[in-house]
Parts: sequence; C-alpha cells; structure tokens
Amino acid sequence: MGLGPMGEFELRAMDRRYIYDFSEGGELGRELLGGKGAGLAEMTSIGLPVPAGFTVTTEACREYMRRGGRLPDGLAEEVQEHVGRLEEAAGKRFGDPSDPLLVSVRSGAAVSMPGMMDTILNLGLNDEAVEGLARATGNERFALDAYRRLVQMFGDVVDGIEAELFERELTALKARRGATQDVELESGDLRELVGRFGEIYSRHTGGPFPQDARDQLERAVRAVFDSWNTPRAQVYRRANGIPDDLGTAVNVVQMVFGNKGEDSGTGVAFTRDPSTGEPGMWGEFLVNAQGEDVVAGIRTPEPIAAMRKRFPGAHDRLTETMARLEEHYREMQDIEFTIEEGTLYLLQTRTGKRTAAAALRIAVDMVTESLLTREEAVARVDPSQLDQLLHPMIDPQAEYEVAARGLNASPGAATGKIVLDADRAEEQGKAGEAVVLVRTETTPDDIHGVIEARGVLTAHGGMTSHAAVVARGMGKPCVAGCEALSIDLSARRLRLGAHDLAEGDVITIDGGTGDVILGEVDLVPPQIDENFGTLLGWADDVRRLRVRANADTPEDAAKAREFGAEGIGLCRTEHMFMAEERLPLVRAMILATSEDERRAALDRLLPFQQEDFEGILAAMAGLPVTIRLLDPPLHEFLPPLEEAESAEMARRIRALREANPMLGTRGCRLGLLYPEIYEMQVRAIVRAALAVAGRTGEAPLVEIMHPLVGFAEELRRLRRLTLDTASSELEQAERQLDYLVGTMIELPRACVRADEIAAEADFFSFGTNDLTQTTLGFSRDDAEGKFLTRYLEDRILDANPFETLDVSGVGDLMRIAVERAREIDPEIKLGICGEHGGDARSVAFCHELGLAYVSCSPYRVPLARLAAAQATLAERGVTAVQVGG
Amino acid sequence: MGLGPMGEFELRAMDRRYIYDFSEGGELGRELLGGKGAGLAEMTSIGLPVPAGFTVTTEACREYMRRGGRLPDGLAEEVQEHVGRLEEAAGKRFGDPSDPLLVSVRSGAAVSMPGMMDTILNLGLNDEAVEGLARATGNERFALDAYRRLVQMFGDVVDGIEAELFERELTALKARRGATQDVELESGDLRELVGRFGEIYSRHTGGPFPQDARDQLERAVRAVFDSWNTPRAQVYRRANGIPDDLGTAVNVVQMVFGNKGEDSGTGVAFTRDPSTGEPGMWGEFLVNAQGEDVVAGIRTPEPIAAMRKRFPGAHDRLTETMARLEEHYREMQDIEFTIEEGTLYLLQTRTGKRTAAAALRIAVDMVTESLLTREEAVARVDPSQLDQLLHPMIDPQAEYEVAARGLNASPGAATGKIVLDADRAEEQGKAGEAVVLVRTETTPDDIHGVIEARGVLTAHGGMTSHAAVVARGMGKPCVAGCEALSIDLSARRLRLGAHDLAEGDVITIDGGTGDVILGEVDLVPPQIDENFGTLLGWADDVRRLRVRANADTPEDAAKAREFGAEGIGLCRTEHMFMAEERLPLVRAMILATSEDERRAALDRLLPFQQEDFEGILAAMAGLPVTIRLLDPPLHEFLPPLEEAESAEMARRIRALREANPMLGTRGCRLGLLYPEIYEMQVRAIVRAALAVAGRTGEAPLVEIMHPLVGFAEELRRLRRLTLDTASSELEQAERQLDYLVGTMIELPRACVRADEIAAEADFFSFGTNDLTQTTLGFSRDDAEGKFLTRYLEDRILDANPFETLDVSGVGDLMRIAVERAREIDPEIKLGICGEHGGDARSVAFCHELGLAYVSCSPYRVPLARLAAAQATLAERGVTAVQVGG
Repeated sequence: MGLGPMGEFELRAMDRRYIYDFSEGGELGRELLGGKGAGLAEMTSIGLPVPAGFTVTTEACREYMRRGGRLPDGLAEEVQEHVGRLEEAAGKRFGDPSDPLLVSVRSGAAVSMPGMMDTILNLGLNDEAVEGLARATGNERFALDAYRRLVQMFGDVVDGIEAELFERELTALKARRGATQDVELESGDLRELVGRFGEIYSRHTGGPFPQDARDQLERAVRAVFDSWNTPRAQVYRRANGIPDDLGTAVNVVQMVFGNKGEDSGTGVAFTRDPSTGEPGMWGEFLVNAQGEDVVAGIRTPEPIAAMRKRFPGAHDRLTETMARLEEHYREMQDIEFTIEEGTLYLLQTRTGKRTAAAALRIAVDMVTESLLTREEAVARVDPSQLDQLLHPMIDPQAEYEVAARGLNASPGAATGKIVLDADRAEEQGKAGEAVVLVRTETTPDDIHGVIEARGVLTAHGGMTSHAAVVARGMGKPCVAGCEALSIDLSARRLRLGAHDLAEGDVITIDGGTGDVILGEVDLVPPQIDENFGTLLGWADDVRRLRVRANADTPEDAAKAREFGAEGIGLCRTEHMFMAEERLPLVRAMILATSEDERRAALDRLLPFQQEDFEGILAAMAGLPVTIRLLDPPLHEFLPPLEEAESAEMARRIRALREANPMLGTRGCRLGLLYPEIYEMQVRAIVRAALAVAGRTGEAPLVEIMHPLVGFAEELRRLRRLTLDTASSELEQAERQLDYLVGTMIELPRACVRADEIAAEADFFSFGTNDLTQTTLGFSRDDAEGKFLTRYLEDRILDANPFETLDVSGVGDLMRIAVERAREIDPEIKLGICGEHGGDARSVAFCHELGLAYVSCSPYRVPLARLAAAQATLAERGVTAVQVGG
Repeated sequence: MGLGPMGEFELRAMDRRYIYDFSEGGELGRELLGGKGAGLAEMTSIGLPVPAGFTVTTEACREYMRRGGRLPDGLAEEVQEHVGRLEEAAGKRFGDPSDPLLVSVRSGAAVSMPGMMDTILNLGLNDEAVEGLARATGNERFALDAYRRLVQMFGDVVDGIEAELFERELTALKARRGATQDVELESGDLRELVGRFGEIYSRHTGGPFPQDARDQLERAVRAVFDSWNTPRAQVYRRANGIPDDLGTAVNVVQMVFGNKGEDSGTGVAFTRDPSTGEPGMWGEFLVNAQGEDVVAGIRTPEPIAAMRKRFPGAHDRLTETMARLEEHYREMQDIEFTIEEGTLYLLQTRTGKRTAAAALRIAVDMVTESLLTREEAVARVDPSQLDQLLHPMIDPQAEYEVAARGLNASPGAATGKIVLDADRAEEQGKAGEAVVLVRTETTPDDIHGVIEARGVLTAHGGMTSHAAVVARGMGKPCVAGCEALSIDLSARRLRLGAHDLAEGDVITIDGGTGDVILGEVDLVPPQIDENFGTLLGWADDVRRLRVRANADTPEDAAKAREFGAEGIGLCRTEHMFMAEERLPLVRAMILATSEDERRAALDRLLPFQQEDFEGILAAMAGLPVTIRLLDPPLHEFLPPLEEAESAEMARRIRALREANPMLGTRGCRLGLLYPEIYEMQVRAIVRAALAVAGRTGEAPLVEIMHPLVGFAEELRRLRRLTLDTASSELEQAERQLDYLVGTMIELPRACVRADEIAAEADFFSFGTNDLTQTTLGFSRDDAEGKFLTRYLEDRILDANPFETLDVSGVGDLMRIAVERAREIDPEIKLGICGEHGGDARSVAFCHELGLAYVSCSPYRVPLARLAAAQATLAERGVTAVQVGG
C-alpha cells in the first residue's frame, strides 16, 4: 500500500516466474509454455504417464532476446530450484557421479516450427558420471551409448559442430568392426567412440566437453533460445506469417530410456490415420531405441499394431491413453512415447497434421462420436486445405527435383507432354494425349489449346495474365511468369533453367506452388466425397455471408453452382468480346470513325452478348447475377502494333496506347465516352433476362454493375443511361423486370466518397484487385516477380496483398466506404468480387465488415463457404485448435 | 399558433416575395438580387441618381427552372403591383397611348456572366403609344427610333430573330437615303423602318409585334430566365466553375434617354484607369445616344475628360458620384450612366475588371488613401492574375486567330521562328534569334535547345512531360500535347491543324491558354514593379502558411528565393541524373550485374550529386531544403529499346519494362531493392551540407525525403539506412549536422496508415500529383487530352484535379492523414509539394488543413504567398469583393 509506482514495478519484477513444473502448468497455455510444454503439463494434470520436468517460458526467451542474449536476472537461480525439485522427485542428483539424474532439453514454441533446435538427450553425463550410470544400471554399453549421443548432440546443436563429423567416426568404427548396425557395437567400441567424439569436440571448440551438469544445462537453454533466430526458422516464420517476437520455451525432462534393452522401445502414434482419417491408433515403434532413431530412419520401425504382441501391457496402456487424449483434446493427437523396461511414458502430444481428406473425415466422425458439435467440426477444418480436394495434386509421398519456378497462378498439378502451340495442344489433347501447353504468353487466340491441355506454363505474365485468369476459371493448373523459361518456336525447343528440352518431352507443373518439374510425377486425383458435402452443409447452416462466384461462361456458372455458389458476383463481359468470332466485330467497333458506324458494329455484337447472358442467367436461374459492363481499355482488343492489318488500325492502336493503362481510359470512362457500348450491353442483358424468364418461368435477378466509378456524377449519368435503355427495351417488349444498378468500388476516391456514390447505387461490390493496386500504388503485373517478391522475401510485407487483403490499408478504406455508404443508405447491398473473396483471412474480414456476400472463382467457392462459417463461429468464440506443438 | 405544419408551410409560401423595388433592396445582396440589381438598390439607398425600378429575384428564376419553365405562382401579380408603384412615382402609366411609361429589362446574375440576354430598352411602346410619346416629347424622330429599337431587340432576344435581318433593313434604308450614320435618318425613314421591322417580326413569329405592354414585360422576363441556359452561358459557367443552379435576376428600370438630343448622352466610366490603376475617372461617352451604341462601337466615343466642357454640371455630378461610389464600395467601380436633357442617371455599377498591374496599384493606392486596410488590400488581388506579371503575355488588345490548341503546360507567351531540333535552337538562339523549339516530344537530350529557345511546342506529352516540367522550371512558355501538330523532320516541314508550315516560319505560343498562333503577335513584357513587392510584403505579414519552391538546380533555387520562397519543398534528384555528362554513369549503374559494379558506378556519380547539392544548399543558405531521393523507374534513364547500345542493354531495357510504370518499381522501392543508390545520395547530401556549412558558416537545414512510401516498414528500414549512412559520414568527418528524415505522402495507403508512418518520420510532404493519380485512378499522361478533357467538357468534373486539388476526394484522404499523423506526433511537420501548392484554391485548403507550408514551382511562389495570406484573411472574415455584376 505504501509502495510508489516504482516499488510496485519492482515487486512485480521480483514476483515474475520464468519456470513452471509440468505439475503446475496445466492451465497456463501454449503462449507461455509453448506447445510442447503445454502438452506435457496438460497430460500431467489429467494423470497420464509423463516423466517429471519443467518448462522455461517463452517470456524468458523474449527477455533474453530483449537483453541482446543475456539470460534474464534470476533465471539461473530458478533453474537450480526446479532441478532441485526434479532431484527430489527422482531420488537422484543432477551431476551425481555415482547415479546421475539425466534430463533431455527440448525446444517448444507456441507454434510448431521446424528449423529450430530440437532435442539434446542424456544431459547430465560426464566422464565420471557415465561410469556411475553404468554401475547403477548394470549396463555399461547403455551408459556409454548415452554419453556418446550426448557429446554428439550437444556438439552439434550447442557448439555448431557438423553432425557429419561424428557420424563419420561412427561409420568408420563400424567398418573396422564389420558391424552394420549400431547395436552390434560393444562397450569397448563405444568407449573408444566416446574418446574420439571428445577429441572432435575439443578440436572444434578449443576446450574439453563440459563436465559440469549445470553448465551443460545452461548452455543448452541458451542454445534453444538462440535457435529461435536460425535462418531456417526465420524462413519458416516468413513463409507462414508467424511473428518474429514470440520466442520459444524450453522443456527440461527427466530422461526415460527406450534403449535399455528388449523390454524397452520408443515410437510415434496418431489417434487416427492422418492420411485417411480412419479411426483407430496409427503409428510405428522401434524396440530398444531412443526417440531420435525413429525420426532418423536408421532402422525401419514396426507398425504400432505389432506392439500388442511385444508389449501387451504397454500397448493396452497406450490405447487407453490415446482414448483419454482424444477425449481431453477433442482433436486427433500425434504423440511420442517411450517404453522403459515395460513402462509407458508419453513425451509429447500435439494436434496431428493430416491430409484434407482426413481432416474432413475426422471432423465428421467426431460429430458422430459426439466428441464435437457440428459447429466445432466446421471450425476445425483449414479452408486453405480444400484446394487439395478439388484439383489433382502431386502425391505427397513423391520425390522430385524442381527444375524452375514460376507464379502459382492456378492450383492443381498436371503431367504431360510439352506442346508449344495451341493448335497442337488441341489436336493432341482431343486425341487423348496428356499435354501441357507451354507458351511465352497466351492470348485469346490460344483458348482452344488451353481447353484441351492438362495445364498451362508461360514465361511471361503475372497472376492476372490471360493464361492465369482463363486457367483459374477452368480449374486448370497454371504456372505463369516462369522467368527461367525461354522458347525457340522455330526449332520447337525450349530452355527451362539449366535444361534444354524439346516439344514432346514430359514435364509436370504444380500450379499450387509454381514448381515446374522434369518428367512425370505421381498425382493424386481430386477427392470430393460425402464428408465434403456434409461438412460444407454444416458450414452453410452457420455462415451469415453469402458466397457467389466470379464466372463469365455458362460452364463456369454451372461449375460454380455445383460447388455451392449462391449467385454470380462478377460476370466480366469483356471475355465475351475476346471470343474468336466476335473479335473482328469488336475491332470494327473500335475502328469506327463515327458514332453511327460504331453503333452498326455494336448492333452486330448484340446477339452474341445476349446469347452469352442467356446461358449464364439460365445456369443461375433464381439466383442473383452481377454483370459488369465493359471494363478494359479498348487497346486490349487490338493486335500488337506490328500486326496491325491496316494503316487505319495502326493509327488507332497508336492513339489508344497508354503510359499506364491501369489508370487510363477504361471502366465507366468508356461508358461515358462511348455510351452506345454500354447501351448495347444493357439492351443485351434485358433481352436475355426476358428470354430466360420466358423459358424458365423464373425471372433472373440481374444486377448491372458499372466499373471504376470514382465520382458520383459518373454513376448518376450511367445509371440514367441504364434505366433509360432498359425502360425502352421493356416498353417495347411490354414486359416487366426487376433489376439493380450499382457499381464496383475499386478506387480510393470511391471509398472516401462512398456517401455520394451510394446515393446513386443499389449495390456496391468491392473490386479489391484494383483497389489494392491503386491504394498501394502496386501494379500487380509489375510487382509480382519483381519488387513485391523481394518485399516478401525481406519481410517488408508479411503476405502478398493480392492474395490476402491488406486489412490495415485497403481494408481501412473499405471500412470507411461501408460506414459512409450506410450513412446514406443503411440497406445498401455490399459485396466483394476481388480474388480476396476466395482467401480465408480476407473472407473473415469481409464478415467482420458486415458485407452481404463474397464472390470468388468457382473452385474457391467451397473454401469461401467454410471460411465464412468459421468467421461466424469465431464471433461466437468457436475457433480451431491450433495444429502442431 | 393553431396552424399545423402544412398550414405553416402554406403561410410561408404565401409570404414569399419575388420582387423588390430598388428603394427596398439596399441590404438584400447579390445572391438574391443579382449583381446589377444589388448595385442599383445600393446606389439608390446611398442617394445616388438612379431611375426608379425593381428587381425580380434569382429565387424567382430558380423556381421557374424547377417548374420546368412555368412562372412561379403569384409572380404575375407581384409584377403588376410593382409596375403600379413605378407608374405612381413616374406619374405616367405603362402602356398609356398618350404618354407611356417606358422601361428597360436587364438580366443580372449574382456572378457576371457573358452570353446571357443583356438588355431590352423602351419596353412599353406599341403602334399607338409611339405616337403619344412623339407628342409628349415633341420629338417624333426620337419616339420612332425608340420603337424600332424595341422591335429589333425584342425580336432578337425574346423571339430569337437574327439581329442581322434587322440590321440589313437599316443598312439598305441608309443606302437608299445616302446616309452614313443612323442619326442622318429622318422621322419618315424611321416610320418606314418601324413598318419593315414589324413585317420581319410577323414573318418570323407568325404574329404581330405584341401591343400589350404587360405582355411585352412578361415575355421579356421569361426570356431573361430562359437565357440562363443558352449554350454560350453554359460554356462560360463550365469554364469558370460557376454552378448551374444559381439562376439570374431581372431588373425592370424606368427608361431614361441619352438620345433626346444634344443635351443628352450616355457613357461608361471607371473610377480609376483599369489598365494601369492610375487614380482619376477614366472612361468614354457619346452625345445623343443610347447605352448600346457605346458598346456596339458604331460611333467612336469621346474620352470622359471631354465631358467637362460639353456637360459641366453632369460632369461635376459624375465626379462626385464616382468618389461617393468608391467611398461606399471601397473598390474601383465600373459604371454605366446616361444624361437625359442635362440630368445624370446611373444605370449600373460594378467592381471594375483590371489588369494585374492595375489591381496591384489600386490595392496599394487605396491603402495610402486610407480607403482600405493592408489586409483588405491583400484580400482584393486575384492570385491567379499574378502570372501575367511574371511572364511575357500576349497583348490583351491584340487580335489573332488560333491555329491549333494544346495543353497549357507552362505559362507565358513567346513569338519566334520555328526550329525543329535542339541543336539549331541552341545555335540560332545563341545568335540572338527568337526561336520556338517545335518537337514531337522532348527528351533530356534536347535541354540545350530548350535553354536557348523562347518557348517550346510539342505534339505529344502531358502536363508532366519532360518538356512541360523543364519549361515550368525555367519559367519558359510551353504548349504540350498539341495533337494537331505533326512534324516531317526529313522535309523540315510541319503540319499545324489545317496549315502547312516550314522551319523558319514564325509562330506565337501562349503557354497560359495552350493557343498556337501563326505569325507574330504583340507581347507585353513582365511587369514586376514596387507595388508587387509592397503588396506581397503585406501578404507575408498576414499568412500563416510558409511558401517554398520546387527547384532542382541552383538557378531555380536562386530564382525561387528572388520570388520570396522560404526554402525548397521538393528538390528532385533524378533531374541531376538526366544531365548529359552523368547519364552514361547512371546507365552503367543500371546495367551493373553485381552490387560491387553498381557501387563503383555510384561512386563516380557521387561527386556530381554532391556538387549539385552544394549549389542548391548554398543558394538557400539558412533555409530548409527538402531533397527527395531517387524516384522514377530506372527504365526512364535508358534509351528506347531500338536505340540500345548493346545486347546487354537491350536485355536490361526489356527486363525493366513495366505495364504501368507509375505503379511499378520506383520511389522507395528502388531504395529498398538497391540500397546502395540511396546510400550514395545520402552520402552526397551530407558531404554537400558539411561543405556549405564550412564555406558559409551557416549549416543548411536539410530534410531527406523518401518517396512513395506506403508501409511504415519501408520507411523504418530506409530511415535506418539514412541515419546509419549519415552517421558514418559525420563520424568520418568528425562533424555535427542537424537534418530531418521524412517521406512523401502520395499513396492512399500512406494516408490511411499515416499513424504508423508518422512514427518513423520527422516530416510528411503531400505529393498530391501522384496522390491524385492513385486516388482517382487517373494516369495524368493518359487522362489529359483524352477522357479527362471530355469529363471537363461534359461537366462530369468541374475542375482539372491536377490543377485544382480534388478536395472532397484527395483532400479527404489528406485530412485523414493529417488527423492520424497528429494523433501519433502532434508536432509532425506537414507540407505539400504537388503542383497544387501553386493553385490558389488548393492553397486555401492546405491552410485549412493546418499544413506548415506549400511548395510550388518558382514562378508560382508569389501566387502562393498571396493565396496563403488570403486564406488566413478568409478565416478572419476578410474576403475580396466579387468582380463583375
């Protein structure tokens, strides 16, 4: 009470603990104890057989980093105190030369993370204690083996001595003894090995192997802390968006030995099959071995079922334990265990990693088993895994070398013969050959080849290149912008990184990673089963956000509906303009020198547009369809200058050239400059809607969308044009039609002036692709593969803002837009149709903003349905258990 | 009290007045009465000799437009009532066949606006009343002349009969009579003319000239209302940013006659000379004439001084009146007057238009005369007029035809011989010839030609093209993007619109309007006199905003300082990279294949940069200088692909090509990709600052600015790089230097995340050019001359957002940025360095935002100083009297 703020602070600092025994930490959680420590403490608290030990917290690691690599004050004393309790419990003393207490030291961050220091076993041994251990256990060979392992592991992870140097000695010794397995070595051999390992250690560190157990322990703890910042760990964190400042905990565990003889062993087990999700214990074990032998793969382990015969007691105990674990965690667990002289010990438990198919099955099964509610099951499945189920994937077991890498432009994998032009791709594809279309870049002229190819690989172009967009729409794998690829079309040859290939050679591409691989690789087919439908059905029951698809063709629309889309959020009309038979008409329209001439060309285009719209509206009968009027700059429809078919065309191509086409004459600017284009499109939409209504008896719910609006005045005029045109069509047809007129919000100005724009719009659809480009000043085509890639590598950015919405920048503008629009029209319909609509984190943000729907490519619809449900559940506090530990 | 809301509304509606007599309206103001009506009412209220009359308000016009062209309810009755009062005052009746009351009807909006219906005189005459008037005045000729004028004016403005048809009859009649002047016609002739005019009227309207005076009046009022929407009026409003919904008032004034004989006359007069500002009445008059004769220029008027002899009484009265008017309005006035049989009447007063030089002189003189305070004088001068004083201008009296039009890229006018390449321009310019450099577009290689030319004309390129930027920096006229220009360099000929010209032909360009004129036109030289310095000195005393200049060379810096710049707000380092002797080094740097090679090239560039910085810092000694590190994409420093000097250069040019360079690898992205470039620049800055400090004894105030920051992390890293580099330089030199590190805010993301960025910055400078491009999604190069021009023509936009800040869009983001930045750092230094810093309306907004300074091109500095002062004054309620009426 009498303490000033300073005194209070000191009290708190003094009161701070950095270490908890497993028996104390049952409730402290993984943020503080790390995943491994939390698991050990929890298992201890529910009475499972865990060796005694304690955890040095992540907070200690953070403090160590803050202090630039000095241990926090008081930590050494705390370690002493907890080692003391361990000694008490074990009835042995640490460093006792006659019967030493041995411990393992293991890292454990809150998030599972490879690349960090893993484990040092047998800590506490030295030249004297090894003899004591031999005497106490009556097993000299065991004691020496334990000591040589300690020297090897300690030398490797604490002092950075290459493990290979130790392995070489071991191999040489085995060769001299004519032994093939470590177990064939005898005590004398191992004694010699300990000597040689000690020499290696001295040679590399300039001093003898540390003999003081407490010194060993402190150096091991420091090594764990330091390993948080190894390059490999940093790379992993970068790739997985894990913050750099979490730090790791350190677990100090009393050693139990699986290598004490034929009544001992060690293994790993899952509570269910991680590949299929099938219920029942799954795993493998090794007799007379220590944990790292299983992982190292030196000896081939036996399946867990075989344990029943070898260790019936331990097997029963393990079976019970696994059941208890699933009951406790209500999640599939992945454990490490050791049997010491017949007694089972658990050394680790964590949520088990699994395939997408297994994830679905486990979630559904656990509901059946009443372990989970449906909502919890929905919360459990990682949406980004669903892609695995919808596309062929490279077999996770397959081994291969990556020859080159491009952009992961459309997910899935494909193996096939290289073909270098679309005509051959079509010909061979139709003939049943598996082919991969390989082009410098694709154009609308290549579309027939893309259709018949298994996948597409291009040298140029980004995530929004023609090849990428078309492939995503078709659910076909595509690797784009593969800079290491160059094609010599005349020679029908290509160069791929260091390799020289010919047309007809087989390659495999992985559009999920961007990998290009020489030759054939085994693929796993798409695996949509009933669990998929069941779980997504539960997700649908939960979610508030509607999910639509971006689709430009009746086929895409049908596919989207099959995947559960509840409408079309973006139908891009320009893709219809690109089709082969229409391009000449489009070009005639662009080259027209008068409005009359332009109108004549448009009149001839109208029936095509109408036909397209009819197909799409019919495929989505009864559901809303948002049709975006022409958006791209007109020069996109003209050939390159050198291919101009006339002087007039060349003149026009030059006139339409723009320094920054992204910010040029496109979007609604076209509609205002050439109102007759939008008029034709509105006419085609209305006629198509009437035709479909007539045929199906159900009027489609058409939403006419004007792109790239920045000023309310633009939309005011275009809205009037739309209403006038539609009215005149309806009057002529003597029919009625309900439709909406709205706009994409894809410019920062539109966000801040959403109030004025809302007054002219029935709906907004956030076009977050372009909004990201303008808000960040990033041209997607120019950024990806160039400075953006470097930004991600250097961690200037945590995520690619074209994949995961930049919530604090672009998202903030969206928030401003939503607030201001709702001030004017609280009922305005709000959605998103950028590619972020198919990204789980971005979907969660859209839910939080209170949008009505997200729209994404058809193959992303299931992901979005699940992500939308999880966003609703997160609001209710139902979240996934983190995988790993 | 017992009235419900509806009753109340009706009461208010019934209570509404649409008409005020001049004697009632003294305080109602120009918004309601229009400029002309307000002037008449005010003059009446201070006892000046104004004929009786009344004003139909602008509100009546607005209601008329709202009702789609029906007169407001009750308006007709109100007109009757006020005509009645007029009759009472005059002692005559409207339409009285024996001695009719005659009136004029004149439009008068709140803002002076040519193109609207101006005046109908002599309203109230008909076939019978003309005879009564003849009898009552004893002057048949006068009465008939008045009647034929009425028929002609009424026919023209009310019924749209071409004035030319009437004029033709008049000319034919004079020819038949052998007369050269109207006054030579006699009564009989005029009687014949009235008959013929009546026939013309009937032929065109299908009915006789209206004989009912009240009918004439109502139709005239309607005609004035309708004239608000003539195309010419609309065009004028568009060009001057006047809202379409203001409406016009109508003034009905009892006729006085300057054409009653040799003791009558009419004229216009200014209270001071509108060309020079010299004190003393200035103007001209005509004896025995009506007002429109002066304006029509049929007879040559006499200077006002001559009035003293002809009408000594009226002259004295006029002199007194003018003094009284200036005393009342405290502003130079422009009046119309009529003398009827020796008696002076004022028909209009308005603030007089004047040249920039006159505006300055009048403002300064009026302070000396104690008519104005200094603050009021500062508020009076239109900042945009100042350009006239700083550049040669086309003589306002000159007549010429515009052959073609381009973008008004740099103000001022130039006359000279056409030269088609920079070398000849240099050669001939140095030889003393006046030449205009005419190019398809300019490049850095043309700079020596630009220096020696009087002005520059280009066919391509926008307001930010090389030619435009360089010309503005030099204060040299430039017309850019003149689409009607094409050059045949081999024939040394050019086509300009419909004209075929050869090199050596003389043209004149007006960079303030974009006009290109064939041949020589008289120019007026720059006119900076002591009034300029006096007034701007007063402005400096008032303003809160500091004014800096954008300058890249010591010469620009010196010029800016001369114009009163208080530092440099933007020094672009890339222009230094462009200079002839450096470009090879810059290219070597870009083509470098390793960091070492790049550093070697940069080491050779460093001394050049240091030399540049030394020059600029010395020129700005004691003032802050903001230096922006390299901003443009590197490909801007390479030649076009077809001019690549090596395969390696071609490869690099291709690799650096970008789809949207504006959104590509530029700005701080360069600094993060190639830190060695920014390191070199920081090193050069520090060394230059130390050198200048050593030489001058005054350490320069350097502000190092990182461009295009969107993420705080970018700036955090670059700030560290800057501090580390500067520290190492300073340590090596064993010196101290104060400097700031900040960023441009030119991306929407930077605005919304200004809080995070502010934590890393000592200052922000709003780069509103790029911020406008990204916020609106307008590429300036692609918009101007294309869709933006159309947007302005069609009035989708009121102003070019690259000239006048888009306050509600871009400005709103700036406001967000300022608020959020100040939350983190209330003391953060904020400025603007986009071209908006030299636009008066934008400067006012910057003041309102509370920025510390604006920065603009050197020649805009005086304008910005004045605009900044006016913004401060506006806050205190001191504003300019509106010119016109």
